Amino acid sequence: MTKKLATAQQRFLTDLFPGDDCLLSPEAMAAFSTDGSRLRSMPLAVVRPGNREQVEELLRWAQSERMPVYTRARGTGTVGNAVPVQPGVVVSMLRMNRILDVDPSDFVAEVEPGAVTADLQAAAAAKGMFYPPDPASSGFSTLGGNVATCAGGLRAVKYGVTRDYVLGLEAVLPGGRVLKTGGRTHKDVVGLDLTRLFAGSAGKLGIMTRLTLKLLPLPETTASLLAGFTTMRAAMDGAAAIFNAGILPAALEFMDSATINALRGAGSSPFSENTQAALLIQTDGSKQAVDLELQRLESALGNVRPESLLTGRGPDEKALWDVRRSISPASFNLRPDKMGEDIAVPRGQVAKAVEAVHEISVRLSLPIMCFGHLGDGNIHVNIMHNASWPEERENAHKAKEEVFALALSLGGTISGEHGTGLTKAAFVDGQLGPSEQDVMNGIKRVFDPHGIMNPGKGW
Amino acid sequence: MTKKLATAQQRFLTDLFPGDDCLLSPEAMAAFSTDGSRLRSMPLAVVRPGNREQVEELLRWAQSERMPVYTRARGTGTVGNAVPVQPGVVVSMLRMNRILDVDPSDFVAEVEPGAVTADLQAAAAAKGMFYPPDPASSGFSTLGGNVATCAGGLRAVKYGVTRDYVLGLEAVLPGGRVLKTGGRTHKDVVGLDLTRLFAGSAGKLGIMTRLTLKLLPLPETTASLLAGFTTMRAAMDGAAAIFNAGILPAALEFMDSATINALRGAGSSPFSENTQAALLIQTDGSKQAVDLELQRLESALGNVRPESLLTGRGPDEKALWDVRRSISPASFNLRPDKMGEDIAVPRGQVAKAVEAVHEISVRLSLPIMCFGHLGDGNIHVNIMHNASWPEERENAHKAKEEVFALALSLGGTISGEHGTGLTKAAFVDGQLGPSEQDVMNGIKRVFDPHGIMNPGKGW
Repeated sequence: MTKKLATAQQRFLTDLFPGDDCLLSPEAMAAFSTDGSRLRSMPLAVVRPGNREQVEELLRWAQSERMPVYTRARGTGTVGNAVPVQPGVVVSMLRMNRILDVDPSDFVAEVEPGAVTADLQAAAAAKGMFYPPDPASSGFSTLGGNVATCAGGLRAVKYGVTRDYVLGLEAVLPGGRVLKTGGRTHKDVVGLDLTRLFAGSAGKLGIMTRLTLKLLPLPETTASLLAGFTTMRAAMDGAAAIFNAGILPAALEFMDSATINALRGAGSSPFSENTQAALLIQTDGSKQAVDLELQRLESALGNVRPESLLTGRGPDEKALWDVRRSISPASFNLRPDKMGEDIAVPRGQVAKAVEAVHEISVRLSLPIMCFGHLGDGNIHVNIMHNASWPEERENAHKAKEEVFALALSLGGTISGEHGTGLTKAAFVDGQLGPSEQDVMNGIKRVFDPHGIMNPGKGW
Repeated sequence: MTKKLATAQQRFLTDLFPGDDCLLSPEAMAAFSTDGSRLRSMPLAVVRPGNREQVEELLRWAQSERMPVYTRARGTGTVGNAVPVQPGVVVSMLRMNRILDVDPSDFVAEVEPGAVTADLQAAAAAKGMFYPPDPASSGFSTLGGNVATCAGGLRAVKYGVTRDYVLGLEAVLPGGRVLKTGGRTHKDVVGLDLTRLFAGSAGKLGIMTRLTLKLLPLPETTASLLAGFTTMRAAMDGAAAIFNAGILPAALEFMDSATINALRGAGSSPFSENTQAALLIQTDGSKQAVDLELQRLESALGNVRPESLLTGRGPDEKALWDVRRSISPASFNLRPDKMGEDIAVPRGQVAKAVEAVHEISVRLSLPIMCFGHLGDGNIHVNIMHNASWPEERENAHKAKEEVFALALSLGGTISGEHGTGLTKAAFVDGQLGPSEQDVMNGIKRVFDPHGIMNPGKGW
């Protein structure tokens, strides 16, 4: 492993990336040494390509130099996937951030990977179109990052995840080969599905330089409903009643008792003292259809007797979602440090999973909050602790291990959205068997024979 | 290439597949030598596994013998993908046809690949759930075949294609390795997406033995609307008006003038003499929501002045879809033979594509019908001809080549649904470049190093 760039390597990079497109000083590189995980490792250099040709030259060079390459954008990922753990070059895609086309006849957008998700959502909405994937970070994370992680979010229960909106892409592979997959058609069955192989590949196959994304017609409006329940089981019965009524909500979130307690502590709880669980449900469509759907939701939930029921349209709707948004800040009233996990379990196992997490929480004397995307069985498990107390730190790690084991024992996954990166790499063997990992390693070698793309990370 | 099984090979197969689970006589194998393409090639043997263990033993043996393996189910594919063009063993999956689980709390089904799609749809509906993918063959084709081809169908515009409903699968690879991908969770981002790599892989990677499928809540009802227009452009304006009103229909089909003429000839046209194009639109949801949506559809279409407008609920709805269903039989009133292609183009290019096909039709003096899934830009192009007239046969081939070139020139694909198999294999190079095919070949070698899975077919 190189610890320092040779003079010729440095000259190559500064020639290819003039001015501040190449950063070499520790001060300038500091921001690129870390991501949402707060893990940190200093790269040898940071480069900021402005076009595909630069990426091609870079990856030709990197392959011949066997130089590790870490692609990143806003670094909002929480598992350390963008951290350059082996000495190598960080490639920031933020200067390839154009929204090239938003086409209302094809219902297609073409973007560079550094474009911010919310900017595309706004550009689409301005033309009556809708880009549904909506990770919590959509205001600042990029479409390239969203595709690389197959970002999920609130609307996945109805609209699916990022993968479902990638029609095609252009990527540069190690050695500088350009790969073009898919296109602007909504259906295409010629060849293997390389497009979706890139979705969620976490920077391990190549560098995406252009994305072709599918858009939908923009629903006229949305409305939401926040229901409190006296038990988690009652909340789950509420969710089942919604699905059983043939309703597919645009979002279906839940909060457990620990989450509601955190909200109470922060003065952000709209719930009565008896409320131990809540559902937050969004519906979208035409104004009349949304009114109708709210009635149907209320009637479906009526059968399971919620403790409270608030509906919101327009500005009132925002108030309901502010409750959801205040979970994260409120959590720090419980403890100063958070381990934010994101297991997913089969939808029918959510109640069992949350009960088991509560048992872990009691046994290890740590506040653990469960909330998130009930419709997908995707549970955010926030293990709150004080990292400066050795026992709590140790118990938090123990809790994390137990939560992963729990997810797997219920037929689930250790990650529904965040990926594995560094923080979950050690747990991948619990989920993926040797056959599966062999095949993934074989596929990786097809794209990246010398293992230069994002080395040191878990599958 | 073997032309005949050696005695030891024959003994291996009859031991592993006793009784009529192994077929060796030309009479018994005839039905397995062909598929919907009517192309034909006699296999060396046909085996019918009843469980995964038999498939494992078979693929261990086939790899060591370098024996071509052709997996099939109902053989409804139209491009010859199931035809054993090199001497080898056909594996019929129809004895692994159990629906193992249809779970109303997880919204998940587990099936063997030989289960018929309509049977799962019915089993799901009986429990208030919905399996949306709906290829025209769903009444007799299988889920394994649907996944292998990434089948599309009528509802893709709203609900996506088969790939979007495969949460996980179990497959046996050459050499007998078992691969398990994904699971019963609706989100999972651990590792490369091997599940969707299998979707559309057309029997080239391994043999799927179990599928985990996603279900949705069952919409309460559906209703449909059939609108006639005096020009194709007006029909396209109608479709645009629907999307611009923020409506995402459950199905959005179109028919061109040649298609309507064929219906007239067969006495199945509900349209006036002036009608040159039509849209058939379905909406689904609660009873009240569907009523509302029909009104919104009528109002959106009103702006573009359709020549006629029929709406149908309940039994009347079936009558509208019977028009669609009568296209295929009616086509044979034009000519006795059909080349049925299935290009897709960006949605906004459909009118241009249809006009260009009409020009080809006039120039080559062949009736060519365009109809299909307008919402996906997926056009069924039926090149009608009399194959016993040499000039028509030759012109039909010319027309097919021109239609593929047209699709590609408009940024489209030579296949939206059917795949390439034998009949389009020669055209794949027009769509996939050498880089893309190299990567696909590399991935194929990871699964199937000796190229025994469905050899002789196009990407």
